[in-house]
Amino acid sequence: MNIKKILIAPDSFKGTMSSLEVCGIIREQFFLQAPEVEVVSLPIADGGEGTADCFLMIREGKRVPVKVSGPLFEELDAWYALINDGKTAIVELAVCAGLPLVENRKDPSLTTTYGVGQLVLHAAKSGAEEILVAIGGSCTNDGGCGCAAALGVKFFDKDGKLFVPTGGTLSDVERIDLSGIDPAMGDIVIKVICDVDNPFYGKNGAAYIFAPQKGADEKMVGLLDDGLKHLSEKIETYTGKDIADMPGAGAAGGIGGGLAAFFGFPLESGIKAALDIAGFEELASGCDLILTGEGRIDSQSAHGKVIDGVAARAKRLGIPVIAIAGDIGDGYKELYEKGVSAVLSTNRAAIPFKQARLRAKSDLADTIDGLIRILKL
Amino acid sequence: MNIKKILIAPDSFKGTMSSLEVCGIIREQFFLQAPEVEVVSLPIADGGEGTADCFLMIREGKRVPVKVSGPLFEELDAWYALINDGKTAIVELAVCAGLPLVENRKDPSLTTTYGVGQLVLHAAKSGAEEILVAIGGSCTNDGGCGCAAALGVKFFDKDGKLFVPTGGTLSDVERIDLSGIDPAMGDIVIKVICDVDNPFYGKNGAAYIFAPQKGADEKMVGLLDDGLKHLSEKIETYTGKDIADMPGAGAAGGIGGGLAAFFGFPLESGIKAALDIAGFEELASGCDLILTGEGRIDSQSAHGKVIDGVAARAKRLGIPVIAIAGDIGDGYKELYEKGVSAVLSTNRAAIPFKQARLRAKSDLADTIDGLIRILKL
Repeated sequence: MNIKKILIAPDSFKGTMSSLEVCGIIREQFFLQAPEVEVVSLPIADGGEGTADCFLMIREGKRVPVKVSGPLFEELDAWYALINDGKTAIVELAVCAGLPLVENRKDPSLTTTYGVGQLVLHAAKSGAEEILVAIGGSCTNDGGCGCAAALGVKFFDKDGKLFVPTGGTLSDVERIDLSGIDPAMGDIVIKVICDVDNPFYGKNGAAYIFAPQKGADEKMVGLLDDGLKHLSEKIETYTGKDIADMPGAGAAGGIGGGLAAFFGFPLESGIKAALDIAGFEELASGCDLILTGEGRIDSQSAHGKVIDGVAARAKRLGIPVIAIAGDIGDGYKELYEKGVSAVLSTNRAAIPFKQARLRAKSDLADTIDGLIRILKL
Repeated sequence: MNIKKILIAPDSFKGTMSSLEVCGIIREQFFLQAPEVEVVSLPIADGGEGTADCFLMIREGKRVPVKVSGPLFEELDAWYALINDGKTAIVELAVCAGLPLVENRKDPSLTTTYGVGQLVLHAAKSGAEEILVAIGGSCTNDGGCGCAAALGVKFFDKDGKLFVPTGGTLSDVERIDLSGIDPAMGDIVIKVICDVDNPFYGKNGAAYIFAPQKGADEKMVGLLDDGLKHLSEKIETYTGKDIADMPGAGAAGGIGGGLAAFFGFPLESGIKAALDIAGFEELASGCDLILTGEGRIDSQSAHGKVIDGVAARAKRLGIPVIAIAGDIGDGYKELYEKGVSAVLSTNRAAIPFKQARLRAKSDLADTIDGLIRILKL
């Protein structure tokens, strides 16, 4: 085998493995079958649970523990990641407002992103110059009001009473006051990482598309959507910003739109943030091969997702890319024009996903084992 | 790519593609992706439908047309293959007693292998020195009595009346007379090719295991099994041979056992016959890679099946082997000790077989496309 060094840069395999797990399995197979190959891991997170840990794995850093408000305003031991000598913080929404935290108490009319704002504020005051907020995996539908409140935005109801709106009380927002935003917000770059394009409200909005998996029934979805629409009108009145049709505004129960409106934080794709911060070009330097992958590869994969992002940069470096996927769907060959050299599926039997997912890890291991054997020929 | 010449030597992919089709798809992908590679095809048949054509593809030869008895004693235009300058004949049971011939008139109590004997006799009289009888894919359960009758064996009922037993009348056999066997049978080597190990009768025998797919209901299965048991007792009486527990005796409605008993024809595995006659070593000479495969690869594949047979010979020649499969099951890694270098699955999505089979050909093509791309790295 002429391969001396490889870079593993996969997305998560949705429903079966995190990108960290994918990296671990591939690394192990190279260790077993080709221990002479140097393996560099760059797990890529999509902004959901595990995103901060991915960055901690790529770059030296630490978890900073902070006590914050949990999704139901309970006290919660949370944390954010600090890397690049404390210059960059990664705040992961899932840590303090993630769906697993509410378990059997799922109710997006009651849950808050207040803790997210507390983490952001702590990071800002710690001296970080740049904060990435990874907002995937939320249990909330509060339009980012909780997070905004923790950062100094004030919400008043029609009786002039200050309150922290949640999904169920967005329609009560009468007036918004931005004058109390913490000054710590002024001096730093904050980016929101997310990989969905949904608008704030409406049939493709936060409530209709994502609230059902957060525990909302049909009736609640309607109320949540009404609340987001009402909030967007108030936001336009008090900030001058129209987020109704902004792509990504509906991410994570509307926190994408809320943070963009209240603070002007830009939304950025997870893949760009990950590759930039990781220093992709530096990691890939000297590699003979890059392995990437995701749960499903199809025509979508050629447009702004992880594989496309990795392949585009690899192509500039002249390094071949093999993409591994659970499923390979129609249109995947478009990737061959984007810098991918070959596409491999991990499926090893004609069985439905509910069975295949149980053996996803060993199937990936066996697929990599087979790949290494072919590369050795 | 350092590969100049490859040999493709696959089994059929049961339920989806014949070995000829597999060869064609792999050959096309190399033509498209790597036209500089010389491709040699050696499709391997398992003794069922298409076996004779596989031999005709490997070796120069011709189809010899013969009018014979069909499975329901109707006149049928059949043929056998003559290769090696007329020295070797391949008689395929499926041509004159195959399941597709009876379509919606499936009834293993009525069907006969008489035509098989007629083809064998014609081949023997044509000057062939060796005859291979490929017995897979039958619609019969006559214990080979029809074939034997055509070759001169006489069966009498208890009234002393000469008859040609079928599955439903095996129990009527009272006396067997071998004295009239055609002298043409004496001077030639006849081998029966089959890949099943079932005994003549009983719960794992010809009737219980194979008759249901030939149209027998539960009651008929019992009667057919009784008939085979009775026949085996008469066979022991009149030939001195005990075929009851002989592995393979239950192949093709018992014709395996019948031919062994009446004529002493040995049963041989399809893979050995195919590789011997094809001249595997000659075809593989100068190849850098051998591709083999079958519908499912598992621990069974390492024991006497096509992949194992190909790998064992490739190993002696020092040529690496990649095995392609629809499904890869437990224990497949045993093949790595048998000369297989890598195993690849054609599955590209987590879907059940009834869906996967519909896309088996394009999945194989895409898998080979991916393999060539990897080999080119």
